[in-house]
Amino acid sequence: MAIVPQFIVRFFVKDSELYKSLQALLGFVPGDESLYELALCHSSFKKDITENNERLEFLGDAILGSIIGEYLFHKYPTKAEGYLTDMRSKIVNRKSLNDIGKKIGLEELMSFNEKDHHLRHSPIFGNAFEALIGAIYLDKGYKKTKQFVHKRMLIPFIDIESLEEIEANIKNKLIGWASRESKELAFIDIDCQQVNGRKRFFVGVQIDGEVVGNGNAMTKKEASKLAAKNAIELLNI
Amino acid sequence: MAIVPQFIVRFFVKDSELYKSLQALLGFVPGDESLYELALCHSSFKKDITENNERLEFLGDAILGSIIGEYLFHKYPTKAEGYLTDMRSKIVNRKSLNDIGKKIGLEELMSFNEKDHHLRHSPIFGNAFEALIGAIYLDKGYKKTKQFVHKRMLIPFIDIESLEEIEANIKNKLIGWASRESKELAFIDIDCQQVNGRKRFFVGVQIDGEVVGNGNAMTKKEASKLAAKNAIELLNI
Repeated sequence: MAIVPQFIVRFFVKDSELYKSLQALLGFVPGDESLYELALCHSSFKKDITENNERLEFLGDAILGSIIGEYLFHKYPTKAEGYLTDMRSKIVNRKSLNDIGKKIGLEELMSFNEKDHHLRHSPIFGNAFEALIGAIYLDKGYKKTKQFVHKRMLIPFIDIESLEEIEANIKNKLIGWASRESKELAFIDIDCQQVNGRKRFFVGVQIDGEVVGNGNAMTKKEASKLAAKNAIELLNI
Repeated sequence: MAIVPQFIVRFFVKDSELYKSLQALLGFVPGDESLYELALCHSSFKKDITENNERLEFLGDAILGSIIGEYLFHKYPTKAEGYLTDMRSKIVNRKSLNDIGKKIGLEELMSFNEKDHHLRHSPIFGNAFEALIGAIYLDKGYKKTKQFVHKRMLIPFIDIESLEEIEANIKNKLIGWASRESKELAFIDIDCQQVNGRKRFFVGVQIDGEVVGNGNAMTKKEASKLAAKNAIELLNI
């Protein structure tokens, strides 16, 4: 069982405004309220790992990955593993989850150090959203969590058709960004080796002469794609 | 619903030896047998994506990740996210899953091109094990799959105490291997950049002068660790 922190009594008094908002968001009456309190507590508010939402985020991230995985498995009965993996990372990425966390109002429900302005630019609402999924799972089980993810995330916020159309070639995204920002972009071959009897390509992404991402794969094309993906993630594009 | 291939009738006739072995392995009577047949069919036997186990592997991988995640979440109630993530990747890695797949006898149950000797050195049994988990999930639901993973994987094959003790510093594993194999090993600085206002280190692993892995992170130590991990994976050490 999850460890229940001692500060629980703080604001989740039944019938309080916050409790009502939480219940409206969940769409059901919470069983173990302390789990939700924990899910909504950022480490800037409680440093102790048993009193903030980081462990629940770990759990929720895993549960969410399998729920979205199953959703895609059924939605695309003839698509290969690679396509399903790509679609999942389009749905479950830091930016998308953080936007969802904000849109469902986690900012108001969460406890965090509001003086730390840096936090507003970090994905704390997406992380709390994942923690919330962890809390729902522990409180209500897998089926109910699946229902929550469908009703409160997939249906209202995920436009699956437009995700399908996102440029399959992620390199173009980086090239477009570099051109808009007048940066000099180059893909450089770092190395090409025989690894375990198979050729393996190591590719780097350079922006204005500096390596900002890298990747390796069995084809140069795939290695460039991974390097572009890595650069996009690190540069927060 | 999963698409049921036409070749199902092949060998899963009830009461056949194979069917009995499968039932013994699962510990329950399969509902939809075609799912298990699909899970045990490698792409070297059936190329069509709807007739081999690659999609089920995607699903099973996700389900397994969340089951192991939950197990660790409860087992270590005071450990941080990073520890749980590390422990999970020690349990759910290609080599470990492939060994488990072999030990539970998937080699005998599977359909694959036996003439392709290369296959015996690739992790097809681990992949089939994941696909089997996907099949159990679709056939019997999350709870039953959890039971299977605990009974047939965690209890018999995972020595959690010894995993806890595995050298935290993965670089030592690579260094030990290089020394045993008389290879010249070097960690090389590829680059160090300001990315998004933060320093980021790019490190490569060289074996006998050739780059065989790379990684990047905010500290050089972490980047070296990731590079070592990458090399270990690629070299199949």
